[in-house]
Amino acid sequence: MTNTKKPSSVWFDELSSKEVADAAKNGTVVIFPLGSVEAHSDHLPLCTDSIQSENIAFEVAKKTGCLVAPPFRYGICNATRNFPGTLTIGFDTLYRVTLDVLSELIRNGFNRIIVMSGHAGNSHMVALRLAAQEIVIKNGEISPGKVRIMVLSDFDIAEEIISKYAKAGDGHAGTLETSRMMAIQPNLIKCKGQADTWNLPRFEVIAHPEKLIPSAVNGDPTIASAINGEKINQYIIKKVEKLVRELETK
Amino acid sequence: MTNTKKPSSVWFDELSSKEVADAAKNGTVVIFPLGSVEAHSDHLPLCTDSIQSENIAFEVAKKTGCLVAPPFRYGICNATRNFPGTLTIGFDTLYRVTLDVLSELIRNGFNRIIVMSGHAGNSHMVALRLAAQEIVIKNGEISPGKVRIMVLSDFDIAEEIISKYAKAGDGHAGTLETSRMMAIQPNLIKCKGQADTWNLPRFEVIAHPEKLIPSAVNGDPTIASAINGEKINQYIIKKVEKLVRELETK
Amino acid sequence: MTNTKKPSSVWFDELSSKEVADAAKNGTVVIFPLGSVEAHSDHLPLCTDSIQSENIAFEVAKKTGCLVAPPFRYGICNATRNFPGTLTIGFDTLYRVTLDVLSELIRNGFNRIIVMSGHAGNSHMVALRLAAQEIVIKNGEISPGKVRIMVLSDFDIAEEIISKYAKAGDGHAGTLETSRMMAIQPNLIKCKGQADTWNLPRFEVIAHPEKLIPSAVNGDPTIASAINGEKINQYIIKKVEKLVRELETK
Amino acid sequence: MTNTKKPSSVWFDELSSKEVADAAKNGTVVIFPLGSVEAHSDHLPLCTDSIQSENIAFEVAKKTGCLVAPPFRYGICNATRNFPGTLTIGFDTLYRVTLDVLSELIRNGFNRIIVMSGHAGNSHMVALRLAAQEIVIKNGEISPGKVRIMVLSDFDIAEEIISKYAKAGDGHAGTLETSRMMAIQPNLIKCKGQADTWNLPRFEVIAHPEKLIPSAVNGDPTIASAINGEKINQYIIKKVEKLVRELETK
Amino acid sequence: MTNTKKPSSVWFDELSSKEVADAAKNGTVVIFPLGSVEAHSDHLPLCTDSIQSENIAFEVAKKTGCLVAPPFRYGICNATRNFPGTLTIGFDTLYRVTLDVLSELIRNGFNRIIVMSGHAGNSHMVALRLAAQEIVIKNGEISPGKVRIMVLSDFDIAEEIISKYAKAGDGHAGTLETSRMMAIQPNLIKCKGQADTWNLPRFEVIAHPEKLIPSAVNGDPTIASAINGEKINQYIIKKVEKLVRELETK
Amino acid sequence: MTNTKKPSSVWFDELSSKEVADAAKNGTVVIFPLGSVEAHSDHLPLCTDSIQSENIAFEVAKKTGCLVAPPFRYGICNATRNFPGTLTIGFDTLYRVTLDVLSELIRNGFNRIIVMSGHAGNSHMVALRLAAQEIVIKNGEISPGKVRIMVLSDFDIAEEIISKYAKAGDGHAGTLETSRMMAIQPNLIKCKGQADTWNLPRFEVIAHPEKLIPSAVNGDPTIASAINGEKINQYIIKKVEKLVRELETK
Repeated sequence: MTNTKKPSSVWFDELSSKEVADAAKNGTVVIFPLGSVEAHSDHLPLCTDSIQSENIAFEVAKKTGCLVAPPFRYGICNATRNFPGTLTIGFDTLYRVTLDVLSELIRNGFNRIIVMSGHAGNSHMVALRLAAQEIVIKNGEISPGKVRIMVLSDFDIAEEIISKYAKAGDGHAGTLETSRMMAIQPNLIKCKGQADTWNLPRFEVIAHPEKLIPSAVNGDPTIASAINGEKINQYIIKKVEKLVRELETK
Repeated sequence: MTNTKKPSSVWFDELSSKEVADAAKNGTVVIFPLGSVEAHSDHLPLCTDSIQSENIAFEVAKKTGCLVAPPFRYGICNATRNFPGTLTIGFDTLYRVTLDVLSELIRNGFNRIIVMSGHAGNSHMVALRLAAQEIVIKNGEISPGKVRIMVLSDFDIAEEIISKYAKAGDGHAGTLETSRMMAIQPNLIKCKGQADTWNLPRFEVIAHPEKLIPSAVNGDPTIASAINGEKINQYIIKKVEKLVRELETK
Repeated sequence: MTNTKKPSSVWFDELSSKEVADAAKNGTVVIFPLGSVEAHSDHLPLCTDSIQSENIAFEVAKKTGCLVAPPFRYGICNATRNFPGTLTIGFDTLYRVTLDVLSELIRNGFNRIIVMSGHAGNSHMVALRLAAQEIVIKNGEISPGKVRIMVLSDFDIAEEIISKYAKAGDGHAGTLETSRMMAIQPNLIKCKGQADTWNLPRFEVIAHPEKLIPSAVNGDPTIASAINGEKINQYIIKKVEKLVRELETK
Repeated sequence: MTNTKKPSSVWFDELSSKEVADAAKNGTVVIFPLGSVEAHSDHLPLCTDSIQSENIAFEVAKKTGCLVAPPFRYGICNATRNFPGTLTIGFDTLYRVTLDVLSELIRNGFNRIIVMSGHAGNSHMVALRLAAQEIVIKNGEISPGKVRIMVLSDFDIAEEIISKYAKAGDGHAGTLETSRMMAIQPNLIKCKGQADTWNLPRFEVIAHPEKLIPSAVNGDPTIASAINGEKINQYIIKKVEKLVRELETK
Repeated sequence: MTNTKKPSSVWFDELSSKEVADAAKNGTVVIFPLGSVEAHSDHLPLCTDSIQSENIAFEVAKKTGCLVAPPFRYGICNATRNFPGTLTIGFDTLYRVTLDVLSELIRNGFNRIIVMSGHAGNSHMVALRLAAQEIVIKNGEISPGKVRIMVLSDFDIAEEIISKYAKAGDGHAGTLETSRMMAIQPNLIKCKGQADTWNLPRFEVIAHPEKLIPSAVNGDPTIASAINGEKINQYIIKKVEKLVRELETK
Repeated sequence: MTNTKKPSSVWFDELSSKEVADAAKNGTVVIFPLGSVEAHSDHLPLCTDSIQSENIAFEVAKKTGCLVAPPFRYGICNATRNFPGTLTIGFDTLYRVTLDVLSELIRNGFNRIIVMSGHAGNSHMVALRLAAQEIVIKNGEISPGKVRIMVLSDFDIAEEIISKYAKAGDGHAGTLETSRMMAIQPNLIKCKGQADTWNLPRFEVIAHPEKLIPSAVNGDPTIASAINGEKINQYIIKKVEKLVRELETK
């Protein structure tokens, strides 16, 4: 199955009905990017997670000819749910959106899909994986191996090289995220930011986590740089490009 | 309640947590735009509905200082559900997304909201209205009149002047939608299109509506023009601006 | 498929198990009438919507030999939900009742069904149509064209001739409904009624619509007449009879 | 709390909005009758359960001035679910209908309610009781003792005197039900019927119970009589009248 | 189908994956025991229902070679729900647990199952039966008679001989339950107990049933004896053994 | 809040209603242990996860006087779901069980709870945490800090010292689990086991993970020892004891 002709846009819904039908016949891979609307301290915008995954998806699509489905920018935010600006959604809501989008892509004949989230929260990722699992099991019974779905956060890949660019424990709104945003949308960087460390209880589930992490920062945004952000983004793009190629060829 | 300071971006999630907190204190109105991924014949892209409502929201926000929440581009498509490219979602899915987004905006202190959909299908609009109604009732019991939500399709407003620009019965992928898209994103117009008329049974609910409306066009895209599209868009922008002003002042 | 023998009653559940089995074999059409328990001002009873659709169903059944399933008199009432007497139900409740009744009729071998509601509220009709659509799609995949379901409000048909008997904008508890009730159950007319106009916000979803429409009347009940009511009813009966015939013959 | 003025009809929805408001102020009791659409052998109609509870409700209302809410004629039928004519509904469906109707009656100020089912199946009665329990608990926390709901099957009361009129083990479509129907609606008795005994496994849950009870009769309809039916009905009416009086006075 | 080799433990989950696979091939019957965490007055522990059914299951398994699935000790308690110690669960919760456990046992090849509950509350038993019914219907359509499920309370069997050992009306925490517990786990008997009678309204669903049954006892625990308890237990064991044999041979 | 009197049993449901009421007044902590029924290769039983958490809970309760609620032995197993013996349950099922048990414990006055699972699968833990979060938020709004819930897997704690006893990457049915089971229930060790490594795709969600991990082992059970198992168990017991003490004192 090879993708002989690139679609007229990398964005799934910028194509016409007919163009999508053609793309489906060509075995085109689809990336479904997700993000969150989540407090990322004072220096980063709420769309930080969304921008990162959408950028990766866009760049990979330009290289590979895969398509990018309309992003879903609302995610499940637990630790930051009480901060101003965060718009968290229910587990079932995210599960159903993912299930419906995957079902419809498959009904359209797209059976090579990458669900890629810029937000990497645990509940969030489980909702995505369980939706994908239901689709894969259901389709696997009908025609084994025909439907293939990957679920990942681009953060999972960034972590492979995080030690080169950030101190240990770097996370939410830290060096990595700030660097990547500086490379993608420097205009959305509000200020320099401040270094801080998340100090949430390991096991206790609490009503007001925001009181324990008032800056919302976990890491050091002050050492972030656009150059490093670009390197990290390029690294992720290459890795996701490989995933697309893997799905195209089998 | 007057909005004394414009936020740094019209897009809700391009703001930081702090900026959103400030906007909420200023009584800023939020528009939540929705669309669909839906077959619009060969000449228009699947994102036609999304582009229209997002464009209106964006222009109104630039004029009024209101904010635009991250759009949700997946909608409930009944008549076109079996066409290539359409990605329809369940009633409950749309209902829950809307409910969660509205709940979270209100938790953030935004209690003047316009839910504006570029897709105007009946089931789709009912899902939006029922979600808004649940929120309004729930909040109305606590503090009457504090939370105000409008639910509309920009198509509802366009219909007021449709007879100036299109033949009677103009609808899906017809003169109006084509003209508006020519004004907003001419690069996404694929070809000239063809005139056709939807001929679906009035009462019967059928398994394959697409067989009765093979072109998916209801109207005459061949007489569309960017100039008329611009006029229609400007008309809608003015009307929605008035709605925002109405919400700001009470 | 012709209905050679009329059942011993038009009411589905006045038949015995065996009689129903015979009717199913004969390709008998079934009408499932729905209504509402809804404030219709001081002059009309709460059952106004129910009486109208049940009367149409009954008269059509007498003429055609089709059967009438036990009516469901609870509906979704949004605008009138806070008036005394209104008993509104949830969207899911109506959806499930309709889904279950349709599923069971089809399991019994009745695959020509008319869902006819005397209440025509938008959410109410969408619940009915989505339930019918789920059934039609599910059965359409197994045996295309075998199951046929129509969903309508008798008010949809009345609207075709409403301008002959009522002023423009006639609606809830107005000339038309009052006339029809005078023709069907004059004993349930409480008093003459008063003319009024619904003046609800076009887009805003509000907590207390009843405050804006205190009489609940939209139209002019004072010019209603039993004679006109009878004409309207006969018109609808003939149209629904045609729908039954259409279902019988294909 | 005494009911000083009888409403113009015993049927809740034959009243106007205003009449219902007055009845609520008078502390009027409401009976919500339920039945089933269920195979009752060849001699009885599918509506047998519905007719019985509606008749009792109607007669009690005439005596006491209580109101009868619109009956719900669809029930949960397990043992007879595969017979022609049976239209069984889901547990959740019945639960939600009951919950919504009770909630709305209480919102209207009716807080003395009898839920009376002509169908006495175990799952069916549990759905009714759990819905009532949820309402009672919820309201009990707000205002203890204010809301009072009874849930019963008229069959529960008939059983007190069943041994006078029927052989041991009399049940579905047997002497009692046939006698009662002969007294209420003799025109719906199709033929004499035949004696039979249900012989279902005590513990095993089976896919096709109808094969083990092909006549659907459990008892002896051949010894039924209208005179006995009338006596039984009168007995039940008196007992339910007492329940209404009990609710009125406390 | 005969069970030629006894598994290394009667407890399903004390076996290894491989041992379970072997047992499934041998047509081994599985008992799924349920109980409750429910106030049983001062003399009996909350686990009274659980202990009884688990003991029966264990003894039957030792005799027959059937397996006992991990017990589920949480049940639906209505009358006792407000007593200290009772941990009641929702109807849907119990339904889903039962559905999932049955589905998974059948996926493993165990299609002869006894669901045996020590708690015999009406809602509780209906949840179990409806879950079993859904499984049996679903599997019955694929391969009739292959899957066989029994649902019972061991109390149903005890009732056959209750008059030998207890006064009429013996029930919750009475002679029977106390005797059985004295035979199984005498160490959990806290004190002698006191005779009492449940006096709950026959039809009314009330918010605080515990106020009408303050001791929680329905019967006379003071005449209980371990000897009688042992006789009752042996009687039930023999009867359940017969049920297992019946399932093994067909 | 100090626990002055130890209850008569560590098991919650071995107490009487009265004893539980007393324990609640004393601020007693409750541990709710969960496990799974999951294939653990040929050498370990399906109850491996359950045994571990129940053992820890039991030992901690003996030391601290806290109570152990009836364990729930069914969990969500993704990677091993198709192996013989695994009985996996739905996400909603686990979520609801946890929600109901926590709600009921809190209704009983126990507001210091540790949810401790022997199974540490990601979906499984998220279901537990989301249920706890819902309870904590709901109660936090009423009375901040009153309700405190911890959610953990004993495996989380074991991991702190795993490098002392096992090779890197030790996991499912490996050195650690085998050692711990050898210390707790040596009689359930079936054979020596074999070393193996899980090799599942990092991102792809697949229909048949069991084909890629045929032994189900991830680690080296052959180097397991009861002595090491005992050390690990003692380490975990001490750590969980500390958590109980922390909850007791605040």
